[in-house]
Amino acid sequence: MQNFSFYNPTRIVFGRGAIGRLAELIPAEARVLLTYGGGSIKRNGVYDQVMAALEGRIAAEFGGIEPNPHYETCMEAVEVCRRLGIDFLLAVGGGSVLDGTKFIAAAARFEGVDPWSIVVERAPIREALPLGSVLTLPATGSESNMNAVITRVNVNQKRAFSSEHVIPRFAILDPETTFSLPPRQTQNGIVDAFVHVMEQYMTYPAHAPLQDRQAEGILLTLIEEGPKAIVNPSDYDARANIMWCATQALNHLIGCGVPQDWSSHMIGHELTALYGVDHGQSLAVVLPSVLRHQRAKKAEKLLQYGQRVWGISEGDETARIDAAIDKTEAFFRSLGVKTKLAEYGIVEGIEAVGQRIEERGAVLGEHNDIDRTEVDAILEACR
Amino acid sequence: MQNFSFYNPTRIVFGRGAIGRLAELIPAEARVLLTYGGGSIKRNGVYDQVMAALEGRIAAEFGGIEPNPHYETCMEAVEVCRRLGIDFLLAVGGGSVLDGTKFIAAAARFEGVDPWSIVVERAPIREALPLGSVLTLPATGSESNMNAVITRVNVNQKRAFSSEHVIPRFAILDPETTFSLPPRQTQNGIVDAFVHVMEQYMTYPAHAPLQDRQAEGILLTLIEEGPKAIVNPSDYDARANIMWCATQALNHLIGCGVPQDWSSHMIGHELTALYGVDHGQSLAVVLPSVLRHQRAKKAEKLLQYGQRVWGISEGDETARIDAAIDKTEAFFRSLGVKTKLAEYGIVEGIEAVGQRIEERGAVLGEHNDIDRTEVDAILEACR
Repeated sequence: MQNFSFYNPTRIVFGRGAIGRLAELIPAEARVLLTYGGGSIKRNGVYDQVMAALEGRIAAEFGGIEPNPHYETCMEAVEVCRRLGIDFLLAVGGGSVLDGTKFIAAAARFEGVDPWSIVVERAPIREALPLGSVLTLPATGSESNMNAVITRVNVNQKRAFSSEHVIPRFAILDPETTFSLPPRQTQNGIVDAFVHVMEQYMTYPAHAPLQDRQAEGILLTLIEEGPKAIVNPSDYDARANIMWCATQALNHLIGCGVPQDWSSHMIGHELTALYGVDHGQSLAVVLPSVLRHQRAKKAEKLLQYGQRVWGISEGDETARIDAAIDKTEAFFRSLGVKTKLAEYGIVEGIEAVGQRIEERGAVLGEHNDIDRTEVDAILEACR
Repeated sequence: MQNFSFYNPTRIVFGRGAIGRLAELIPAEARVLLTYGGGSIKRNGVYDQVMAALEGRIAAEFGGIEPNPHYETCMEAVEVCRRLGIDFLLAVGGGSVLDGTKFIAAAARFEGVDPWSIVVERAPIREALPLGSVLTLPATGSESNMNAVITRVNVNQKRAFSSEHVIPRFAILDPETTFSLPPRQTQNGIVDAFVHVMEQYMTYPAHAPLQDRQAEGILLTLIEEGPKAIVNPSDYDARANIMWCATQALNHLIGCGVPQDWSSHMIGHELTALYGVDHGQSLAVVLPSVLRHQRAKKAEKLLQYGQRVWGISEGDETARIDAAIDKTEAFFRSLGVKTKLAEYGIVEGIEAVGQRIEERGAVLGEHNDIDRTEVDAILEACR
């Protein structure tokens, strides 16, 4: 096992009626800015529940944080924070609202000249506004981790940053808030969580059998429970299990002490920035192709994954690895998520993805061996 | 899945050399009391590593916290804290040092008349001294949870308390510190962690498949790695895996949203209080007997456990449940831990255990159906 640090102080309040506990989770004297996205929370009753729980304690609202939240939008919210003396942010929504709110939290207290440097130059974040969340879309794990991904429209860049200062103080997870999700968001969320697990698990053995089993446990549960929620969107237990899986998939726990390979996410971010494909869709395309391309280096874990997650024990190693990857892709398709670039209308110019990754000086994969040429090959294979 | 809250802010620093990071984990201006047990840390080099890392930042030391830490001993340390204006506690040792230090932390800031009321009357803990730890014995999970067990000698009581205020700020886990553990402590620690998992897992199905798999993952890993550490005490990876399993076994995670049955611990505590049997030994005796006694009510989970943890798929349900429980007991014995009361010289007076539990008004088990009569039967069956 590799050395590691683990720190996750987010208080999780999980279950039916959990929004009713909001009042005790936010400091009584706080000036709260409520942040949200496209307004679904006003249609599905979540906004009303939040308002009822907080009874006039919201100082202001900031809606309109878009999927793949924009730097430009977030900076408007930063201005609101400064103008109104906001000292607590309450993000109500999915991963994009969370990520945008994390950037707002850091930028509002950033002492440098340009907060975008947090993202592109990894400028140190020394403090941030405290934030909490009511999660309505299980997918990114952003509700209890230190990560966020921000898109700057005028330079067409989608980039990640990390800081302990932006870990949410609390996350309210009420599975009932997810009953009304559009099917596409449910599907994308399951794929996103599944791929988060794979990127921390599908590398090479590192004498970390508990982390392997924790990862496999999430994958098996998503495979069992995901389809139930798609068939019956109001299946409480299926929704609850997916929600808890998505949080556990990226709360830093399963990545403790093991090598990681975030190449699917890095390539996927470029596809989203360039072509506007949903984040979950980009991952459903890229992950199977990364696995096929890296199959020799990931062989031991692919065999373990095939056996433990998909019950594959027949055939020689080549056949078992083929089957494990095919099952993965078929699972995404069974959820209703397409897995080829052409199915999203992406047919030309994909060499731009590798080019942009190269321009940033990034080399991907657990062995740091996926450069521009390899990225081209990976994308060529999932046309 | 049941509603739940989860909160675990302990920062884990794991691996070789982790003690060297102590200085950055304790506030620079803190007046630190170092607490420890019987002095093994002075023989195995851990004390020297701590002193080197903190370079003169220890204000005072308090050694001699015994196994099943005594209220009386802890109150001496409270006096030291008050006299010297201590404002940070650093516990270096195993679960007993941790638990004792948690009580010291709470008692030093307790505003009522008698700090023992924290334990017996559940007097509210409103604040506590901050504490951190260097763990040297993986077993109790106390390094990252809110629980502690304290024994008051003059009334011969061993009792638990819980408070978020006593969750350690950090836990340093260096597997190398466990190489020199006496075999009995290694054995007991593995049993303790195993039983912690069972008490959160072995009840009835609650639509919580991820929590089940997280629990099974710890059990499987302890079964694989435990014997390796017993054969080769300096096997780093085995020690590392056991250490991480013991933390995960009782950091509140696997208990999220599921019913729990702490009857083995409750009965075991009485055996320790009355007969001085080690905590791990008491559990190795009681758990198999609880499982046999409650087998009808735990049947579904016992079958799942037999299948997934022990690979038992042959025979009818009765035979499979028998086999699952027998395998559990055999595992404890294979580690070198005896599983019958008589093997610890306990032959008479065991009805006192049920009597003491009844006097406290406690009824045990996930169905609240294990009263004094049932406790008698459970103990009768493990003579």
